[in-house]
Amino acid sequence: MTLYLNLAEELAARIEQGLFRPGERLPSVRTLSQEHGVSLSTVQQAYRQLEDQGLATPRPKSGYFVNQLRQQPELPQISRAPQRPVEVSQWEQVLELVSEPPSSDVLQLSRGIPDIDVPTLKPLLRSLSRLSRRQSLRELSYGAVEGEISLRQEVARLTLDSGCQLAAEDIVITTGCHEALSAALRAICQPGDIVAVDSPSFHGVMQALKGFGMKALELPTDPLTGISLEALEMALEQWPIKAIQLTPSCNNPLGYVMPEANKRALLALAQRFDVAIIEDDIYGDLAYHYPRPRSIKSFDEDGRVLLCSSFSKTLAPGLRIGWIAPGRYLQQVLHMKYMGTGMSAQLPQLAIAEFIRDGLYQPHLRQMRKQYARGREQMTGWVSRYFPPGTRVSQPQGGFMLWVEMPQGFDSLRLNRRLAASKLQVAPGSIFSAAGKYRNCIRLNFACSHQPSMEAAIRQVGETVTQLLAEDA
Amino acid sequence: MTLYLNLAEELAARIEQGLFRPGERLPSVRTLSQEHGVSLSTVQQAYRQLEDQGLATPRPKSGYFVNQLRQQPELPQISRAPQRPVEVSQWEQVLELVSEPPSSDVLQLSRGIPDIDVPTLKPLLRSLSRLSRRQSLRELSYGAVEGEISLRQEVARLTLDSGCQLAAEDIVITTGCHEALSAALRAICQPGDIVAVDSPSFHGVMQALKGFGMKALELPTDPLTGISLEALEMALEQWPIKAIQLTPSCNNPLGYVMPEANKRALLALAQRFDVAIIEDDIYGDLAYHYPRPRSIKSFDEDGRVLLCSSFSKTLAPGLRIGWIAPGRYLQQVLHMKYMGTGMSAQLPQLAIAEFIRDGLYQPHLRQMRKQYARGREQMTGWVSRYFPPGTRVSQPQGGFMLWVEMPQGFDSLRLNRRLAASKLQVAPGSIFSAAGKYRNCIRLNFACSHQPSMEAAIRQVGETVTQLLAEDA
Repeated sequence: MTLYLNLAEELAARIEQGLFRPGERLPSVRTLSQEHGVSLSTVQQAYRQLEDQGLATPRPKSGYFVNQLRQQPELPQISRAPQRPVEVSQWEQVLELVSEPPSSDVLQLSRGIPDIDVPTLKPLLRSLSRLSRRQSLRELSYGAVEGEISLRQEVARLTLDSGCQLAAEDIVITTGCHEALSAALRAICQPGDIVAVDSPSFHGVMQALKGFGMKALELPTDPLTGISLEALEMALEQWPIKAIQLTPSCNNPLGYVMPEANKRALLALAQRFDVAIIEDDIYGDLAYHYPRPRSIKSFDEDGRVLLCSSFSKTLAPGLRIGWIAPGRYLQQVLHMKYMGTGMSAQLPQLAIAEFIRDGLYQPHLRQMRKQYARGREQMTGWVSRYFPPGTRVSQPQGGFMLWVEMPQGFDSLRLNRRLAASKLQVAPGSIFSAAGKYRNCIRLNFACSHQPSMEAAIRQVGETVTQLLAEDA
Repeated sequence: MTLYLNLAEELAARIEQGLFRPGERLPSVRTLSQEHGVSLSTVQQAYRQLEDQGLATPRPKSGYFVNQLRQQPELPQISRAPQRPVEVSQWEQVLELVSEPPSSDVLQLSRGIPDIDVPTLKPLLRSLSRLSRRQSLRELSYGAVEGEISLRQEVARLTLDSGCQLAAEDIVITTGCHEALSAALRAICQPGDIVAVDSPSFHGVMQALKGFGMKALELPTDPLTGISLEALEMALEQWPIKAIQLTPSCNNPLGYVMPEANKRALLALAQRFDVAIIEDDIYGDLAYHYPRPRSIKSFDEDGRVLLCSSFSKTLAPGLRIGWIAPGRYLQQVLHMKYMGTGMSAQLPQLAIAEFIRDGLYQPHLRQMRKQYARGREQMTGWVSRYFPPGTRVSQPQGGFMLWVEMPQGFDSLRLNRRLAASKLQVAPGSIFSAAGKYRNCIRLNFACSHQPSMEAAIRQVGETVTQLLAEDA
């Protein structure tokens, strides 16, 4: 991390801890420069960073002051989903999102792409490159359908961080988390079956439900604590639900971490009604606070939780390596994996296993967590500044996604059409709902918010939103 | 190719063309050595090769003679399948086959692994290695769900060889042929639907049918010409068949090429009964005779043929890159692809596109075709020599698989158990049938028949077969 960002973070932490109070003057540039042994311009950069984050404001000739009230925008409203099973729609909107290959001259606001241009990933690419040349059966041939044993061992160890006690034999490697989720659904459910989901929810799962002819029951979801357990209980009483699918840790798109007590209570409900839980943990390792949150799987005693994850958000999506710990459904999941893709590519599995074994995964994660925590502050600050008043914003606890809610009636698809000319696209909220709700919301990716053009881009999105709202008024 | 193999091939060709007739003495070692400007030992090696292939026999002090009758073993019998829709079984046997990662100290007789240790693949590995280091969004991020456009263009051009007229837009890249076939089935059929298949047939498709709750109707299949069109017509009249799935060019496991007239007739039937055809062409580019056979897809006028293939047999399976040209089912297939794996890895797509664009694919194919054609001769020769009399053997026209039929009652699973001690495994015939038929058959991989230990391995398999038959007698 650069010096000025370090300093800015330290100051931000002191403000958040109350060591500097609202309205109070912050130390002068010169003082800080001497105190920290850094240049004047470094301190100035750090203060500009605090300004960007909405934490401090400069007053002419007087220095920087802690903002009166931290301009934290309001949270999105608790979602009110239809609460009956519906067939999933929105495929055309999803297709639009996933049909365009990302290009380096376009800012990646819309898709769930992490920052892959970081030095801590270099060793992984080097081993991928080295292994590619070896031309041995092990790298280039079919592997075992379960996946490479060395990687399964490393993944089993990684899951200790979320409180799991798994062995390599409990893990099946998949082609991304997509295949893990898809295999989990097919292992448990038949066409026509009802699956309860958080709402908003990952569009990949929704589209899988659509493809398999299953129905989604969207549950009201609190932007800080996740799905309503009361609503879930009522739904379980009312409908023959086969599985609960959710992303409880660093949720996509809302970013919340479901409290541990809620995770336990959810599991108890699943036991009482004897349904399976498909837990998407793809962003879990990117929680800003260490140690990372426990998974529901870590409380699971009778194997009803299918833990799905991947290296797509922590390392790089293009590797297409995910995994599933399917509990008691291991045999069914193995069959689904075999019929879906036969097996996953060996090369990236071997390279990732090496990367973890060499002790490079955790330091990389630490960097990314810091970067994304900063990104959240920046992005929240920009949205507060450039979006119209009344815009509501999520408070993610991990990952690199911000959920932004405009007033009812706002149309995010229209926003995207308007933004197309400037090569900007956001993820429209409606793809995160089976029934096409949340059209007034968008999801923004702040993984690369350090890119110089990012602020201008968010400014333009914000101004376009303001324009559209004015046109409708 | 080494000198002696060149010479052997030339002599074999002359024998096959009738320039040397059965019983006739072949030129002396000295004569050939002078005529071809090669050493005496090279000629002797070439003659031993002919001997291995069952084409010539040495007589003491008289030289080599063309064998009276070429010892071509009898063909397998035309399969008599149940001819009613059945649910697919045999998952445990397939799992056993695909659970073991291939190891370089074990001969790969059982799985469909090509020879990947060939010089013509080196440039592909080099570009894979180079691209791995680039750390750019294009290689490491999500690509488009349809796949990398440069590869789709190259694939479209490749399919010209089988008579197709396709554009890049008609092609969807998949994670191996597995995903292509799986997406094709799901795009067309619902659980409970009946799919007509050739028999014996690829176990991956059968297990997909099982996983989706579909039923397989196995059709009688001629080891030289493929499925019986009469039987297919009767089946279409009798059952509500949704799709016909088959591998008409260089069939797996039988190796036949369905005659062009039959391909046309099959398509006409599909049109008359309005069913889709899922054509697996994965071995098609490995037909020994150039130009390669036309695909059924090349005759398709109303988009009812879904052509599925991959680079797993022509380049390397570990790349996990396949494709599908789904005709009128493009939208459904795209959706199935998205819900299955999201997208396929970018790196191998870019490397393969480069390999083809650089003009390296066709020369590689030429080498592999020659090698596999030789492998067929060797393997057929060894089976004739080391297996008990009455063993029937397929006459593949492409690919690297031999289908070997022992008398009824022979148990290939028992054979595998007996072979396990010597680290040898063959593919048991029963996994190629939905109903578990063909237990008396095995499939042998001759991709690497040049490996020094291969003849001894086949000899051991043959002797174990003989033993087992004697024990039962």
